[in-house]
Amino acid sequence: MLQFICRFSLRGIALLCLSALLPAQAAPDSAKNDATTPSYTADGRLLFPANYREWIYLTTGMDMDYTTDPAMAGHSMFDNVFVNPEAYKSFLATGTWPDKTMLVLEGRMAAGKGSINKAGHYQTTEVMSGSVHVKDKSRFGGAGWAFFGLDHAKPAKQIPTSAPCYSCHEQHAAVDTTFVQFYPTLIGIAQQKGTLSAGYLKEEAAAK
Amino acid sequence: MLQFICRFSLRGIALLCLSALLPAQAAPDSAKNDATTPSYTADGRLLFPANYREWIYLTTGMDMDYTTDPAMAGHSMFDNVFVNPEAYKSFLATGTWPDKTMLVLEGRMAAGKGSINKAGHYQTTEVMSGSVHVKDKSRFGGAGWAFFGLDHAKPAKQIPTSAPCYSCHEQHAAVDTTFVQFYPTLIGIAQQKGTLSAGYLKEEAAAK
Repeated sequence: MLQFICRFSLRGIALLCLSALLPAQAAPDSAKNDATTPSYTADGRLLFPANYREWIYLTTGMDMDYTTDPAMAGHSMFDNVFVNPEAYKSFLATGTWPDKTMLVLEGRMAAGKGSINKAGHYQTTEVMSGSVHVKDKSRFGGAGWAFFGLDHAKPAKQIPTSAPCYSCHEQHAAVDTTFVQFYPTLIGIAQQKGTLSAGYLKEEAAAK
Repeated sequence: MLQFICRFSLRGIALLCLSALLPAQAAPDSAKNDATTPSYTADGRLLFPANYREWIYLTTGMDMDYTTDPAMAGHSMFDNVFVNPEAYKSFLATGTWPDKTMLVLEGRMAAGKGSINKAGHYQTTEVMSGSVHVKDKSRFGGAGWAFFGLDHAKPAKQIPTSAPCYSCHEQHAAVDTTFVQFYPTLIGIAQQKGTLSAGYLKEEAAAK
């Protein structure tokens, strides 16, 4: 397990840039930061939100890939997405994300046979990767979003804006550079509120 | 989509008894009950907790099965598990579930290719099934647990205690008749607190 620096971008196009490997069973708790709004070190590193598992759950994918390359061999992984509660409540009301939104993507090793399970996959204690997508207009350009990898040992550096996760999210994401098309309880709200991006609407129309 | 009355029990052994099919995109909101403790009708039906998606997320499985039968053909499904926040906090402190715990199992249709996704699976807006595992010692015998199916149109009937979900959970579940072995952030707490069931420990020892 030495991979997963930008899992999806390494394979062609970025979903969310995943970063440093975590030790098995370790929760990402750098600096034990329990805040639900972004906090930074003096040199601009993000304090990873230690309690993100108690935020609002949005969805889980398994082995998702935006390329047509062969699937990863040898293992499967779940990706769980969480958002800070304040941003979730705002999305319910407006169909888009407020400033200070944080979306956490957690990658967990999948297992097949184990305990009494005989088929399919379940999530294990092994956290393989993590990243945070942060909206903070006072710090970041464009629409105000930045990606941070997760480095368990210390606060995380921002992923450079030249990384393909930025351009992929800008081009293909349904709402405000975020993949709301994969968040089943939110996509309908965005449709109702009319907040779907032009790029997403164009791609959906072309796919019909 | 006319199946999923006790998805797992129909296939041999119960995981959690899933019940009535929900219409696509419908959130389970019978009687619009926002309580985080169990509420019942006069005739003992459970008011389904409408806001369970805002509770604490525990895990997701995909196409899990406790039998060795061939996998279901034609579709894949994710199972998401949520617990009421009060019970989660108590589990963190004690390693087991307090009275009035509610665990919700939500089954969602999986999709493969869609939007820019080319491989793997993501969750769709189609909720296929749901059930609630309720601990309420004042109402139910034994350790105080009961299963309720989800009937979108009206409060749900208790699943009879003769159903295999009860015996399977009693025999194989790691903590207090619940499958904590599949909840990655909780199994370590149960280990630390010494709350793992004798049956689970015996099976784990035998598997080594």
